[in-house]
Amino acid sequence: MSEDLGREMEHIGSKARNAQRRLMGLAPDGKNMALHYMAEFLRRDTGDLLRANRKDLRMAQKCGRDEAFIDRLRLDEARIEKMAEGLEQIAGLPDPVGEITGLAYRPTGIQVGKMRMPLGVIVMIYESRPNVTADAAGLCVKSGNAAILRGGSESLHSNMAIAERLRAALGKAGLPLDLLQYVHTADREAVSILIQMDKLVDVVIPRGGKGLLARIHKEAKVPVIMHLDGNCHVYVDRDADSGKALKIVVNAKTQRLGTCNTAESLLIHRDRADELLLPIAHALQEKGIEIRACPASFPRIHGARLATEEDYGMEYLGPIISLKIVDSLDEAIGHINHYGSQHTESIITENYTHARRFLREVDSSSVMVNASTRFADGFEYGLGAEIGISTNRLHVRGPVGLEGLTLQKWIVLGDGHIRA
Amino acid sequence: MSEDLGREMEHIGSKARNAQRRLMGLAPDGKNMALHYMAEFLRRDTGDLLRANRKDLRMAQKCGRDEAFIDRLRLDEARIEKMAEGLEQIAGLPDPVGEITGLAYRPTGIQVGKMRMPLGVIVMIYESRPNVTADAAGLCVKSGNAAILRGGSESLHSNMAIAERLRAALGKAGLPLDLLQYVHTADREAVSILIQMDKLVDVVIPRGGKGLLARIHKEAKVPVIMHLDGNCHVYVDRDADSGKALKIVVNAKTQRLGTCNTAESLLIHRDRADELLLPIAHALQEKGIEIRACPASFPRIHGARLATEEDYGMEYLGPIISLKIVDSLDEAIGHINHYGSQHTESIITENYTHARRFLREVDSSSVMVNASTRFADGFEYGLGAEIGISTNRLHVRGPVGLEGLTLQKWIVLGDGHIRA
Repeated sequence: MSEDLGREMEHIGSKARNAQRRLMGLAPDGKNMALHYMAEFLRRDTGDLLRANRKDLRMAQKCGRDEAFIDRLRLDEARIEKMAEGLEQIAGLPDPVGEITGLAYRPTGIQVGKMRMPLGVIVMIYESRPNVTADAAGLCVKSGNAAILRGGSESLHSNMAIAERLRAALGKAGLPLDLLQYVHTADREAVSILIQMDKLVDVVIPRGGKGLLARIHKEAKVPVIMHLDGNCHVYVDRDADSGKALKIVVNAKTQRLGTCNTAESLLIHRDRADELLLPIAHALQEKGIEIRACPASFPRIHGARLATEEDYGMEYLGPIISLKIVDSLDEAIGHINHYGSQHTESIITENYTHARRFLREVDSSSVMVNASTRFADGFEYGLGAEIGISTNRLHVRGPVGLEGLTLQKWIVLGDGHIRA
Repeated sequence: MSEDLGREMEHIGSKARNAQRRLMGLAPDGKNMALHYMAEFLRRDTGDLLRANRKDLRMAQKCGRDEAFIDRLRLDEARIEKMAEGLEQIAGLPDPVGEITGLAYRPTGIQVGKMRMPLGVIVMIYESRPNVTADAAGLCVKSGNAAILRGGSESLHSNMAIAERLRAALGKAGLPLDLLQYVHTADREAVSILIQMDKLVDVVIPRGGKGLLARIHKEAKVPVIMHLDGNCHVYVDRDADSGKALKIVVNAKTQRLGTCNTAESLLIHRDRADELLLPIAHALQEKGIEIRACPASFPRIHGARLATEEDYGMEYLGPIISLKIVDSLDEAIGHINHYGSQHTESIITENYTHARRFLREVDSSSVMVNASTRFADGFEYGLGAEIGISTNRLHVRGPVGLEGLTLQKWIVLGDGHIRA
């Protein structure tokens, strides 16, 4: 049985590889046409998509899934319209493929530069939200990649219905249908096979809970664009502006609680604690945030709990924040590099040298001055789209847009040049 | 025992991590000072280095190693001088760390851009040449990384003697000594442990034979900058200039036989076979190259052998080339993408559209027009240095210089900005 599954996955991989290679020989304007047809077909077949989605919803209810789960799974007309609009937005973005940079003459007379190209075949593994099917497909096609999609089994009918419309749109635009394949087998082992096919798959992008990510990290032989924890810090420096500090801390922690760029840890310089500790603590407590405070701040904040060593490393994804008073910028940077998850950190300061040092020395994918960590996002950064936030160091770090789904190859132009 | 070794490697990794973080807080000019001291100390202690090297040479002779091996292992005054000059050249290159690009205002008022930073901790695994110790250390330090070096056991005395001088130079420049550590334990398992320490090591760069690479590919949990086969192609197009074709094919195949950017496979368009097949074949045969020819060309070339399917996928690294007559540019591109190793390919053509299509559609790390594949090299490309040639698709593809040893993080500058 498993051997059959292996052959099936290899077949899917080969079809993806061939479709992607064929795409490179086709006119690039077909991609945008396909994206517009995708939007059109999702809108046109809204009724069918809702019917497919109802099957998934009924099953989820039968299995006693909680309300949050069912809400993520649910499609309605507004959500389908949003998917369609997302595809149209992707069509409007500049095409990253083929861009040539740095082409310059070398002393030997050859011209050397780089050309941006698709990564190749991308496997996306995701959980319940069916809109990921359309988002991921749109971004992969626009960046010239083939996508092999595998969503959660709970959203199988919705995902297959969406994928079918997207494939039809590829066909209508004259592109290979196998640029987009949805893996619908119920066998969980399919994922294990896909993420080990390092000849046929170029990268795996998982989106989902920690269990899924841990499994993929453990099993993958193919490079993974990983999205791990976001234990983000705000550091209120000795030279912080009080108003900015208060505003940014509250926004970074409370604007949304469950996102990876939400602040989970607050550092305050000792010289500003008398002035700022209570106003900031109260503002957070008013928004329902529990404070886990260091031994120096704990006795001063009514209702706080004493932080453990573990708290400093936590991504709470909820109404809790850890708090520590630090003696210096050095201590703050050291604390962040030690306990942080290298996601997003912000310093609040008016001091030029402190800002400059923080930007350079904090080893995170986004480092900010006087701005809320909540800005760490592909749309806010101007990428036009986001397929996820990478916690990798190599290839792409932080929000991943179209460019993160491409690579650069070298090109050399000569006129009969040989090496001496 | 293995537990002790594990602890020892973790200790090395922690020291590297701490040293690299400390470096980020130090003035960047110390790095160039250290590189100059490195060169100075190698020159000053040439006698000691030669003595250490003689121990390795004696052992290699005792073990009956062949001449080529012993030549690679041997140091002499000229080779030590070359190492020193290499370090001085690296000192003269622009510092890649801290470079800010694309910093621009977003509609929200924040400024968003990218800052180039070191990868972190790099493990280099290499075989007999002791000069790699100095080259790798120089490139890692210049790019702000910590290096953990592990050379072949046959060059242990030479490598340790070199590493000792390099560390002394770091100390004299006021930099942390543990930016550079040499792993001298005889236990082969040390490598296995190092390449799985994904919390303490950010990337592994192996340089060596296929056995070493296969082992690292199989065992590594840390990202690897891999250097696999170079089955490079030259395609003589229908619209090739005869003189350029002859010159480039001969250079690409024969200028050096054992390098990864040497041509291993020749494709000739059917319409040019009558004119070019024999002159090219004879020119190659005159240089001692054996031709493994397709069924269409085999009967026409005296002394050729018939190519098997396997020949088209071979990296000979020797005086052999495979040859195939193709019907079209499409067939050439298809053949290269199918049988090639995605290293370096060149088209010989005067046809604008063919050149443009070849550049875009050939999926290799270097794609060339009218130039010898032998140009695929960090120095020829203007990188100023080369730590290897990457056959990865992600992060860095083709020749790897200082930039390949860095990453880009996002920076955000605000003035009290919060997300709405």
